[in-house]
Amino acid sequence: MKATAVKGTNDYLPREAALRDYLQSAILEVYQNSGFERIMTPAIEDAENLDKSEGGDNLNLIFKILKRGEKLTKALEGGNSGELADLGLRYDLTLPLSRYYAANRAKLLLPVKCIQIDKVYRAERPQKGRLREFVQCDIDIIGSSSPCCEVELIATTAKALLAIGISSFTVRVNDRRLLRGVLQGLGFAPEALDSVCITFDKLDKIGPQGVSQELLEKGFPGETVERFSALLSQGPVTLEQAVSLCADTEAAQSLTGILRQSEELAGGKYQVAFDLSLVRGQGYYTGTVFEVTSRDFRGAIAGGGRYDNLIGKFLGEQVPAVGFSIGFERIFSILSEQGFQIPGRKQRIALLYDPQDFAAAYGKAESLREKYDVALFERPKKTGKFLNRLQEEGVDGFLSYGQAEEPTIWE
Amino acid sequence: MKATAVKGTNDYLPREAALRDYLQSAILEVYQNSGFERIMTPAIEDAENLDKSEGGDNLNLIFKILKRGEKLTKALEGGNSGELADLGLRYDLTLPLSRYYAANRAKLLLPVKCIQIDKVYRAERPQKGRLREFVQCDIDIIGSSSPCCEVELIATTAKALLAIGISSFTVRVNDRRLLRGVLQGLGFAPEALDSVCITFDKLDKIGPQGVSQELLEKGFPGETVERFSALLSQGPVTLEQAVSLCADTEAAQSLTGILRQSEELAGGKYQVAFDLSLVRGQGYYTGTVFEVTSRDFRGAIAGGGRYDNLIGKFLGEQVPAVGFSIGFERIFSILSEQGFQIPGRKQRIALLYDPQDFAAAYGKAESLREKYDVALFERPKKTGKFLNRLQEEGVDGFLSYGQAEEPTIWE
Repeated sequence: MKATAVKGTNDYLPREAALRDYLQSAILEVYQNSGFERIMTPAIEDAENLDKSEGGDNLNLIFKILKRGEKLTKALEGGNSGELADLGLRYDLTLPLSRYYAANRAKLLLPVKCIQIDKVYRAERPQKGRLREFVQCDIDIIGSSSPCCEVELIATTAKALLAIGISSFTVRVNDRRLLRGVLQGLGFAPEALDSVCITFDKLDKIGPQGVSQELLEKGFPGETVERFSALLSQGPVTLEQAVSLCADTEAAQSLTGILRQSEELAGGKYQVAFDLSLVRGQGYYTGTVFEVTSRDFRGAIAGGGRYDNLIGKFLGEQVPAVGFSIGFERIFSILSEQGFQIPGRKQRIALLYDPQDFAAAYGKAESLREKYDVALFERPKKTGKFLNRLQEEGVDGFLSYGQAEEPTIWE
Repeated sequence: MKATAVKGTNDYLPREAALRDYLQSAILEVYQNSGFERIMTPAIEDAENLDKSEGGDNLNLIFKILKRGEKLTKALEGGNSGELADLGLRYDLTLPLSRYYAANRAKLLLPVKCIQIDKVYRAERPQKGRLREFVQCDIDIIGSSSPCCEVELIATTAKALLAIGISSFTVRVNDRRLLRGVLQGLGFAPEALDSVCITFDKLDKIGPQGVSQELLEKGFPGETVERFSALLSQGPVTLEQAVSLCADTEAAQSLTGILRQSEELAGGKYQVAFDLSLVRGQGYYTGTVFEVTSRDFRGAIAGGGRYDNLIGKFLGEQVPAVGFSIGFERIFSILSEQGFQIPGRKQRIALLYDPQDFAAAYGKAESLREKYDVALFERPKKTGKFLNRLQEEGVDGFLSYGQAEEPTIWE
């Protein structure tokens, strides 16, 4: 039998598991204190729901669950490999949330302000930093189209990041409607916008020249590409420039307000910035999109946006919704590498006993447990070596039952 | 798209999710305070590992994950439906733990005393009380064959149950070696013991007469069945009776010591009892088995035992191990039905704002968040109706921004 964890998944040692627990609790506490409530959905979803969910590239990464028994026999007889599975593992928490809202809205306080902290699954090609099983921490507001929701999500997510010791980050904000308006203002045809956005999204990787070149290669009119290129060549497009080029005044006003209020709430503790090149991959975003970047982390550490059409797929009526997701694994992996010390943990001590004293030693351990976390260990033959091992593992001290009344705490 | 959760899985409303979080945290806290450390393993395991794991009936309930791309094409060409999946979802936490130990033992403090609280998956026929996705809470000790481990696991699991308000329960304990010794002492042949145990396990459902009848139907010698029947007819077999019938003195001594010490540690707060008819389904148990039953719950609310051979399947050397698992879902479902009130939660209030005041209202909410959990809501048109809805949802009070400084707390 194979001892290693499945490729792209991780076993977590006690020290790592403790850090994961701490980070999740700290984030959850901020979110609950801010009036959001946790909900839970299953990791297994209907395969058809997943397939139809506009998840962009993620739709190619769905783990499907094989049918069983007669259903499987029938599917194999049919000879259509698409029929082999009717269930799958969720690739994010937004699709399950949309389904959840549709199923439970009569029982929910509206607008829904909810927290999800849970595992999702993607059949990524295994490589460093790409996991097949990973945790996402999301907050969402469902049932309100007010831009105040965006402001609240940005402020609350930022507060959670600050609470786990992440600072010097920037919340980059854009609105897909504004971006599309700008591109149309420059002369790109409405049906070309998706393709232009895909290229523009790469701005931070390939630069303005790379963007122009790719657009020309895609066959867009030279004159239009040149106007775009001229705009980009002056450095990052400012909000004023974008607004002046965009005919969608609602999008312009909404984004302007979100940026202004978010900056006010940030109070200098983090940056808020407009970024016209921010697109975000998911197909379901309809308006505002946001992302958090930090000079201490490569790539985004949080991302989200407004998805006003996804829930409608379940309900047949449009329900506005917006969410922000913390990239938990990226943060965990950096803090873990940095040897992050969990604040506020009880000291841990080991109590060594001889087997014939077990019940009495257990009683002694119990009496110490108000003050310490106490682990019982049968006294090993090589006590000195064992004590060294305890110290290596971060245990804070020990008590040898029958030889001392109070534990020895190591410095 | 289908709005309901996949059959056999659940969406949890905020109230339910809060209870699940509370119960898991409370159990985790007791376990950590008792010196166990949490570890985490993936929900996805190698399909072959799962298939070879001696999980008894659970092996028929494994969700398999469909291969993808070329691998799937090849498997379909092969025409063997057993080749369609190389991964599966774990059906318990013991198999992943065994694999984890084998993969990571060089990095672990030995003996390992670990906690697992996580989801497992079984393709059960959907029915009340049978979930396809559910949480287990396990503690295990790996690397020690001392009966002190059993005593510690029983005392620690009982403490966790007491901590979440469950009392008046009985920990039933048996040893498979003792049971087999008794059955051999009565005249059953060694190769017949598994079959006899399967029948004996049903004692609480079918009674002593039912057991005798089924054994006769299975074709066991009438004389042997009659001796067994005579033993059972006197009421529950006592430990003394069992020990006198069993040639395995090691098993008899071990179990006698475990029962005596466990009773001592229970100190009357719960019952500890010998139960010769306790078998437990999993194929991998090798010695002691235990189960917690309570008059407030139907069926077992916790169970476990010693599994000294499972880890050897990964390592090729025998590693002693013993574990105890709390049946989280059963406890959750009863406490949820009883309207269990979570102790120690901050009061939750709603702060109503008008959109133009959002940033200022956010500031006010922040100032109240040391004392309360505060949720922001845009002032609805029908405020009275909304406030009623808040009360129904268990919100403790409200503050209308601009109209009052301090929140109104409902009685």
